[in-house]
Amino acid sequence: MRKGRMEAFSDGVFAIIITIMVLELSIPHEASLSALLPLAPVFVSYVLSFVFISIYWNNHHHLIQAIDHVDGRTLWANLHLLFWISLIPFVTGWMGENQFAAWPVSLYGVVLFFAAVAYFILTRTLISLHGRDSVLATAVGRDLKGIVSVVIYLLAIPIAFVNSWISFSLYVLVAIIWLIPDRRIEKNLPQ
Amino acid sequence: MRKGRMEAFSDGVFAIIITIMVLELSIPHEASLSALLPLAPVFVSYVLSFVFISIYWNNHHHLIQAIDHVDGRTLWANLHLLFWISLIPFVTGWMGENQFAAWPVSLYGVVLFFAAVAYFILTRTLISLHGRDSVLATAVGRDLKGIVSVVIYLLAIPIAFVNSWISFSLYVLVAIIWLIPDRRIEKNLPQ
Amino acid sequence: MRKGRMEAFSDGVFAIIITIMVLELSIPHEASLSALLPLAPVFVSYVLSFVFISIYWNNHHHLIQAIDHVDGRTLWANLHLLFWISLIPFVTGWMGENQFAAWPVSLYGVVLFFAAVAYFILTRTLISLHGRDSVLATAVGRDLKGIVSVVIYLLAIPIAFVNSWISFSLYVLVAIIWLIPDRRIEKNLPQ
Amino acid sequence: MRKGRMEAFSDGVFAIIITIMVLELSIPHEASLSALLPLAPVFVSYVLSFVFISIYWNNHHHLIQAIDHVDGRTLWANLHLLFWISLIPFVTGWMGENQFAAWPVSLYGVVLFFAAVAYFILTRTLISLHGRDSVLATAVGRDLKGIVSVVIYLLAIPIAFVNSWISFSLYVLVAIIWLIPDRRIEKNLPQ
Repeated sequence: MRKGRMEAFSDGVFAIIITIMVLELSIPHEASLSALLPLAPVFVSYVLSFVFISIYWNNHHHLIQAIDHVDGRTLWANLHLLFWISLIPFVTGWMGENQFAAWPVSLYGVVLFFAAVAYFILTRTLISLHGRDSVLATAVGRDLKGIVSVVIYLLAIPIAFVNSWISFSLYVLVAIIWLIPDRRIEKNLPQ
Repeated sequence: MRKGRMEAFSDGVFAIIITIMVLELSIPHEASLSALLPLAPVFVSYVLSFVFISIYWNNHHHLIQAIDHVDGRTLWANLHLLFWISLIPFVTGWMGENQFAAWPVSLYGVVLFFAAVAYFILTRTLISLHGRDSVLATAVGRDLKGIVSVVIYLLAIPIAFVNSWISFSLYVLVAIIWLIPDRRIEKNLPQ
Repeated sequence: MRKGRMEAFSDGVFAIIITIMVLELSIPHEASLSALLPLAPVFVSYVLSFVFISIYWNNHHHLIQAIDHVDGRTLWANLHLLFWISLIPFVTGWMGENQFAAWPVSLYGVVLFFAAVAYFILTRTLISLHGRDSVLATAVGRDLKGIVSVVIYLLAIPIAFVNSWISFSLYVLVAIIWLIPDRRIEKNLPQ
Repeated sequence: MRKGRMEAFSDGVFAIIITIMVLELSIPHEASLSALLPLAPVFVSYVLSFVFISIYWNNHHHLIQAIDHVDGRTLWANLHLLFWISLIPFVTGWMGENQFAAWPVSLYGVVLFFAAVAYFILTRTLISLHGRDSVLATAVGRDLKGIVSVVIYLLAIPIAFVNSWISFSLYVLVAIIWLIPDRRIEKNLPQ
C-alpha cells in the first residue's frame, strides 16, 4: 500500500490540532493590557503544546520518509497516535485555564505519555513491516530519546501533586531534548 | 478524471470531522478530578466516533486505492457519504451530553445507518464505473460486513427506546467487526 | 507555475468551510425529540449550504483539471472566490437561526451572488491565461448556467423582503440546475 | 529531504487559520440589519486578516516553489512562521470586538511584526541551504518589501496609542504593497 494518503490524512489532523488550540485563547471583552494578563497561562500552555505537536509532526515526517510502504496495521497504529494527540488541545486548555494546578498538569503528562507509547508502537509496527535490516531500523536504533521521554513523563505525572511547576519544567525539558531534529533518520536516508 | 483531488478533499473532511469532535469536550473550570467525571460519557462517545470515522477513512482509503479513475457521479456519491459523516460530531455530542439517553442513541444509529447506505452507494457507483470484472468488484464481493452492519443498525435504532445500552453495545459490535481492515481489497490489489 | 498547491490549499479551505458549518448545529441540552425540532431550520440551511459548497468544489475541480498552469493573478482570483465562500457558514447560521427571515435570506443571496461573480472572474482569468482556443475556453463556452444563476440571485435578493420562501426556493432551483455536473468540461477533456 | 510534506502541512495550517477567523463573526440572534451593524468592525478586521494570510500563503507558495529541498532547520523555521500566523485570528478578533482600540491594534502590529521576522528567518535559512548563487537567492535579492513592511510595523505599534486609525491605515498600506505578487521569484523561476 502506498504511504501518500496516510501522510496526507496525518498532515490534516496535525494541522487542525495545532490550530484549533488557539481557539482556547478566548478573546477578552476589554481592550486593556490587564484584560490580557489572565490569558498568560493559557498562552504559555499553548506555546508548549504547539512545540510538542510540532515535534510530533517533525518526527512523523522523518519516520514516514524513511519507509517505503504501509499496511492495514500501520494505518491503525497511526490512527492510535493521532487519537492521543487529538486530546492535547483539551489538556492544554484545562492546564492553562487552571493556572497549572496539580490535576491538569498531571493529566497533561498522562496524554503525552500515551502519545509517546503510541509513537513507539507505530515505529515498531513499521520496523516489523520493513525488516530489522531496513534503513528505518538502523535509523531508529535504540531510540534513547524515546525511552528518556517516557521515563520523564512517568516521573512528572505524580510529581505534579507535590509541585506542578517541577512537572511543567520536566515537560519543557522533554521538548528541548526533542527540538534537535531526529538526525538519526536524516543521516541514514539514502537520498 | 483523476482520483487525486477527491482523495485530498475527502482526507481534509475526514481529518476535520475527527478533530472537531474534541471541541465537544468542554474544558471544566475547576481543576479537580471530580470536575472531569461528568465528561466521562462525552469522552466515551468521542472514542466510539473516533473509531467509526477511522474505520470509514480506512475503508475509503482501501476502496479508492482499488480504483483507477472517477467521474462526476462518483464525486457526488462521495460528497453524499461525507455529508452523513459530517453529522457524526453532532450526534456524538448529543449522545455524550445526555448520558446515552434513548433519543440521542437512536439518532446516532440513524446517522450511522445512512452513512453505511452512502458508502454502499459509493461502492456500487465505482463498480458500475470499473466493470463487474474489475479488481474492485472482485475485492468487494458480496460485502457481508456491510450488510451485517446495516442489519445491526436497523436493530439498534428501535432497541434504544427499550434499553439504550444494548444499542450502544451493538454499535461497539459493528466497530469491532470493522476494526479488522478490509483484507478483501488488500489481498486483491495488483501491486 | 504549477497548479498543485493552489488545488491543495483550495481543497483545505473547501473541506474546512463545509465542515465547520456543522458546529452551528448547537447540541440541545435535553434528550427529547422536541429539543431537536428548533434545530430544523438550522439543519435545512446546513443541507442547502453543504450542497452549494459541494457544487463549488465540484466545478472548481472540473475547472482546474482543464487547465495546465497558473500565475499570480490566478492565485488571487482563487483567493477572492474562497473569501466569499468563507462567508457562507455565517449567512447559513444567521438564516437558520432566524427561521428564514427576510434579511438573512436576502444576505444569503448576496453572498452567493458575489461567490458566483468571483467564480466568473476566476474562469475569465484562467481563459485569458490559456488562450481563447484552449480546452478550457471551449469547455466553458457561453457559461449559460453561470449567467442564469446570477440572474436568479439578483431576483431572489429583493424578493426575500416580499416572501423569503420564494427566495429560498430560488436558491434551491439554482442548486438543482448545478447538481448536474459540468459535462461541458468533462466532455472536452483530452484524457 | 523532499519539500512536499512541508508544503502540505503548511497549506493545511494556512487553510484552517484563514477559515476559523470567520467563527469570530458571531451570528446575531435578531434578523434585522441593525443586528448586523455591531459586527462591522469584526468584519473589517476579518477582511484585513484574510488579505494578510492570503499574502503570506502566496509568498510562501512562491518561496517554496523556488527551492529544491528542505532540511530539519527549514522545518522548524517554517513552524516558527506558522506559530505567529496562528495568533492572527486571536488579535483579529480582539481588534474587531473592541472597535480598533489602542491595545488590540498595537498587538495586531506586534504579531504581524514577528510573522514578518519569522518569514525573514525562513528565507535566510533556505538561502543558506541552497547557496548564495541559487535561483532563490537571486530572486529574493535585497528584499526591499520585507524591510519596508517591518519598518512600517515598528511605526504602527506605538502610533496606535496616539491614533489607532493611523496604525490601521499603515497595516492596509503594507497589505497594498504586498498585494502585487512577488514577481522577483516568478521572473527568476527556471520553468
